[in-house]
Amino acid sequence: MNFYSKLTSPYFKKHAAKIEQALDRFLPKPSQHLSKIHEAMRYSVLNGGKRIRPLLCLAVSDMLGGDPKEALIPACAIELIHAYSLVHDDLPCMDNDELRRGQPTCHKKFGEAIALLAGDALLTQAFHLLGELRDSKKVHRLLTRLALAAGTFGMVGGQVMDLFAAGRDLDLPALDAIHIQKTGQMIKISCLAGAIVAGADPKTEAHILKFGEYLGFAFQIVDDILDADGYLRLMSAHEAREKAREAIAKAKRALKGFDQNLHLIQMTDFVLDRGRDRN
Amino acid sequence: MNFYSKLTSPYFKKHAAKIEQALDRFLPKPSQHLSKIHEAMRYSVLNGGKRIRPLLCLAVSDMLGGDPKEALIPACAIELIHAYSLVHDDLPCMDNDELRRGQPTCHKKFGEAIALLAGDALLTQAFHLLGELRDSKKVHRLLTRLALAAGTFGMVGGQVMDLFAAGRDLDLPALDAIHIQKTGQMIKISCLAGAIVAGADPKTEAHILKFGEYLGFAFQIVDDILDADGYLRLMSAHEAREKAREAIAKAKRALKGFDQNLHLIQMTDFVLDRGRDRN
Repeated sequence: MNFYSKLTSPYFKKHAAKIEQALDRFLPKPSQHLSKIHEAMRYSVLNGGKRIRPLLCLAVSDMLGGDPKEALIPACAIELIHAYSLVHDDLPCMDNDELRRGQPTCHKKFGEAIALLAGDALLTQAFHLLGELRDSKKVHRLLTRLALAAGTFGMVGGQVMDLFAAGRDLDLPALDAIHIQKTGQMIKISCLAGAIVAGADPKTEAHILKFGEYLGFAFQIVDDILDADGYLRLMSAHEAREKAREAIAKAKRALKGFDQNLHLIQMTDFVLDRGRDRN
Repeated sequence: MNFYSKLTSPYFKKHAAKIEQALDRFLPKPSQHLSKIHEAMRYSVLNGGKRIRPLLCLAVSDMLGGDPKEALIPACAIELIHAYSLVHDDLPCMDNDELRRGQPTCHKKFGEAIALLAGDALLTQAFHLLGELRDSKKVHRLLTRLALAAGTFGMVGGQVMDLFAAGRDLDLPALDAIHIQKTGQMIKISCLAGAIVAGADPKTEAHILKFGEYLGFAFQIVDDILDADGYLRLMSAHEAREKAREAIAKAKRALKGFDQNLHLIQMTDFVLDRGRDRN
C-alpha cells in the first residue's frame, strides 16, 4: 500500500469531501458589490489542497469521541488561515510566486490589491468561523490558541525569521526554531483544536500537544527533503529522513494510550512518506 | 470651548492615557528573533493616534456601568484592527502612501514585507486580545461582531468597493454604501463592544447600535469635508455639513434614555467638529 492510497482510504475520502463542502459553505458567495473579493477568497481556498491540517483536526476529534460536525468548524478555520498565509506569501514583496499548485497565484489572477485584501479577509473569516460553535468556552480556548499559533510567536514569526535568514547560513538550532514557528505551530494547533472541540481533559490535551509537536517537526523536515532545502544544507537526505522518522516514532508513542488511534497513525505515516505535490 | 479641548477634558485625557498604556502592554515587546516585526507593530500603533474608536468603546461602557479595565480589552483590539487596516492601506499596491501623521509609513520605514506581516500580526493580535476577557460569553459575542465588522461585509468590503470606485462617478446611494462599510461598521462596533463588555441587555444594545450607526455615518461625511472628497463631489460643503449635523442629532436622540450620557454627547460633538489631523 502506498501512502497516497492511505489518505484515499474510505475514512479520509469521506472526511476530505466533508471538508470541501464545509469550506464552500463557510466562504462567502460572490455578491453584487463584492464579487471580486469573494471570488479571490474562494479561488485561494478551493484549489485542490490536500487539507492535511483540517484532516488532522477531524482525526483527533474522532479519536476522542468528538462530534464530527463541530470539529469541522475549527478544522476549516485553520485551513482558511493556512490559505491566507499562502496568498500573502506569494505576493511580490514576499516570495513573488506566479504559480501555486499549477495555477496562477491569487495576485496574478486578481491583482495585488485584491490578493492583499483577500488574505486579510480570509484571516478575519477564520476567526469569525470559530464563533459558529455553540459552546462559548470552546470558542474562547480555540480563539486564544489559534491566534497564538498564527501570530508572531507562531506562523508569522516564522515567516519573519525566514525573511531575515534568506541567503544566510543557519546552524541547526536556528533552522529548527524557524521550522517550529513557521509550520510546526499550525500543525500542532490543528491537533490541539481537535482535542479542544472534542472536550478533552487537560491530560489528554497534553498528549495531543506532544503528538502535534513531533508531527509538525517531521512535517517540515519532509518538506525540506522534497524541496532539497533547509535541513539538506546541513545534512544528507538520508540523515534528514532519519531525523523525520525519529520524530514520527515519538509522535506515534504519544498516541499509545488511545484506542481508535488507527487513522491518526495513518496520517502520521502519510506525513513521513507523502509525495512531492504536498500542501 | 473648542472641540479639541473637549477631548482633552479630564475624562478623555484620563481615558486616552489608559488606552496608550494598555496598547503598549498588549503589544509584544521586541525580542531577540522578532525585534523588527514587533517594532513595526508598535511603530504603527503607538503613533499618536487620537484613539476615537477605543474612546467610544470606553465611553459607552462607562455610561452603562461597565468595568473600565475590562472595556480596555475590546477597545484596544479595535484600535489594533484600525492600525492594521492603515498599514495595509498605505502599501504600494493600495494607496502607496509615504507619510502618515507626518511620519514615514510602516513600509517606508521597515520595508514592504515586514509591513505586510506587521498588518497580519496586528489583526491576529487583536483577536488574541479578546481572549484576555474572563467571560467566555462576552468573548464569543465580541469575536463574532468584530470579525463581521472587519471583514468583507464591513471594513474590508468597503476597501474593495473603494478600489473599484476609484475614478468613477458615484451616485449618493453608492457612496453611502461604501462609507457605511469602510468606516461606519468599525465605528458602530466600537460602540457596540462597549455595550457587550458592560453586559448590556438587548434593548440597550439596540439603542447603542442605532447611536453607532448615525455616528459612523456622520464621521465619514466629516472626513469627506476635511478631504474635500466623496460627498463634496455630489453636494456643497454646506450641504454635507448639514447632512452630518442631521446624523449627529439622530445619534444624540438615541442616547436620550440614558443618564450619564454627557461624555458620549461630547464625543459626538467632537466627531462633527474635529479638526484636520484626524484619525
